[in-house]
Amino acid sequence: MKTLHVELGDRSYPIFIGQGLLSRPELLKPYVKGRQVLIVTNTTVAPLYLQQCEAAFAGFDVHSVILPDGEQYKNLDTLNLVFDELIDQKFDRGCTLVALGGGVIGDMTGFAAAAFQRGVNFIQVPTTLLAQVDSSVGGKTGVNHPRGKNMIGAFHQPQCVLIDTDTLNTLEDRELSAGLAEVIKYGLIVDLPFFEWLEEHIEGLLQRDPQVLSEAIERSCQNKADIVAKDEKEAGLRALFNLGHTFGHAIEAGMGYGNWLHGEGVSAGSMQAVYMSKLLGNLSEEDQQRIAALFERAKLPVLPPSVEEMDNDKYLDLMAGDKKVQAGKIRLVLLKTIGEAYVTGDYPRELLERTLTEWRP
Amino acid sequence: MKTLHVELGDRSYPIFIGQGLLSRPELLKPYVKGRQVLIVTNTTVAPLYLQQCEAAFAGFDVHSVILPDGEQYKNLDTLNLVFDELIDQKFDRGCTLVALGGGVIGDMTGFAAAAFQRGVNFIQVPTTLLAQVDSSVGGKTGVNHPRGKNMIGAFHQPQCVLIDTDTLNTLEDRELSAGLAEVIKYGLIVDLPFFEWLEEHIEGLLQRDPQVLSEAIERSCQNKADIVAKDEKEAGLRALFNLGHTFGHAIEAGMGYGNWLHGEGVSAGSMQAVYMSKLLGNLSEEDQQRIAALFERAKLPVLPPSVEEMDNDKYLDLMAGDKKVQAGKIRLVLLKTIGEAYVTGDYPRELLERTLTEWRP
Repeated sequence: MKTLHVELGDRSYPIFIGQGLLSRPELLKPYVKGRQVLIVTNTTVAPLYLQQCEAAFAGFDVHSVILPDGEQYKNLDTLNLVFDELIDQKFDRGCTLVALGGGVIGDMTGFAAAAFQRGVNFIQVPTTLLAQVDSSVGGKTGVNHPRGKNMIGAFHQPQCVLIDTDTLNTLEDRELSAGLAEVIKYGLIVDLPFFEWLEEHIEGLLQRDPQVLSEAIERSCQNKADIVAKDEKEAGLRALFNLGHTFGHAIEAGMGYGNWLHGEGVSAGSMQAVYMSKLLGNLSEEDQQRIAALFERAKLPVLPPSVEEMDNDKYLDLMAGDKKVQAGKIRLVLLKTIGEAYVTGDYPRELLERTLTEWRP
Repeated sequence: MKTLHVELGDRSYPIFIGQGLLSRPELLKPYVKGRQVLIVTNTTVAPLYLQQCEAAFAGFDVHSVILPDGEQYKNLDTLNLVFDELIDQKFDRGCTLVALGGGVIGDMTGFAAAAFQRGVNFIQVPTTLLAQVDSSVGGKTGVNHPRGKNMIGAFHQPQCVLIDTDTLNTLEDRELSAGLAEVIKYGLIVDLPFFEWLEEHIEGLLQRDPQVLSEAIERSCQNKADIVAKDEKEAGLRALFNLGHTFGHAIEAGMGYGNWLHGEGVSAGSMQAVYMSKLLGNLSEEDQQRIAALFERAKLPVLPPSVEEMDNDKYLDLMAGDKKVQAGKIRLVLLKTIGEAYVTGDYPRELLERTLTEWRP
């Protein structure tokens, strides 16, 4: 087992990574303050891991709530099901919420914990690669608005994150690939050696080699933890994680939540950012092909929807409503080179429109 | 004009108190960071003060949203109307929300500001006495759950609070009295000289003498600001503000939100706490009569609903779901003496039940 630490002063917390960790209650128990535990999970994960998770909290007053599965349910109405259960069971301020599932469950459970009685504890037990390397680390929580992803939320740090790599054995291939999009992103934005390592090990990841998966998760979480420690509330540096996300969020919203997986949007969106970085003279044609090749080997889409599905006006309208907008400018994460990203709102508008027009099927 | 300061490190903010302050845009402008301003108000306040408030933000990109008026609308559905407007108008992270109204508007606007894009700025312009002396100071924001008041929310401090005492001229008598319940509460919990001052000036307050109102607001806010500065997140001391609130919230929820005003619940609930303090031997019969007399002079109910309306089981069930519960114990704020309160979960259960049984019509 590996243990990483996210350093955030009195909000610091550990991330445990390894095989079979869900069978080790002693890892979790020190992080439960009171007696009451509510496990929040979904209809896909519950049959696989809920019983095991409940056993990990044996001795506490454990309840669970099972939400419908999918990004399309990541909204205030579904969140209310969690509040209903908390209030039905008379949970108090000393309770602990446990997010057992992917990124949607993690984000919603974290926001429920942030808002219930103005803030209670929570623990992340991410069961998808995407949640393990991205959404479970950093304290961003929230739900979607019909016209904008994660528009309603809070920064709320967990007490600990427990990543049992065994849970990846039941993950669908498409979900595994979606997680790899965020893994590749860390290489692109801050870690060229990791990008090169991924070029060597991408097949091992797709074959779910436990050692290779563990190393990829650890290196991803370490990159994320380092940046979050320096910029908890996304004043600057942390915005680099959004590579491909402004384009990707527009794709996810424009195509209807749940049709494009988040990681798929990030993959195609990252390639849009790469293409625009090439137009700006930062990247060569060869860089672009090299990056596209890795996403493709990871079984991810490199091209966004067709013009019939998403025209430029639709992109620009959705992107203008994104959280990355400042003073009316759509701020984008672009690449200086492979392994180094930057944030800018200062680019010729025409290059953004050319990117949307030229980089598509 | 008086200026108080709530000292909370980098979340410190000023409270301006005086007549005609809504006509002084120079007070507000330094606290607006970006260009976008959304004024949130309700159907009662909008015809009276929205135009004046919009003028106070002249030069900014000002929008407004008018919510239905009443505690029964303080929920996630109404909150969504604010999010809809923010997203329709493409508001970004640099925007400022302005709460123009009473406690319900302040709590909802504050929570909308806490949650929109994981946190934007907001300004409180409280127009009721209750909001001016209580809910607009201290950063508690939130909405109700059908079975519990303020169950969903956040701690989120405003950039500034502007209290224009002229707005009290249009307040209904019943609302003015409701605000006086919270004013009297400060005297009871921490400030005997203020309690004595109120005994002398209660008629002046009911007659809306601007000087007397101003002093009562200032002394109330000062008491609140002093305690909030020491205990922002209600780890201890701040819980004293909840005198009468555990009983009072049960009355409000049990009778249906909007039927008993919050201040009315606090008045009757404070008298339940006073009666129980007497049963515990802390207060004399004379103390109890003296406190009841002040609430009565303020035109507030001192008796809770009848047993037919709220029996003990209903109280205990609602109180057990209150936020003040810790490890299954209903924590109550009781009085040691007039001007000194304490919080306890350690009392004979029988005395709580006797209080519910004996102190009612």
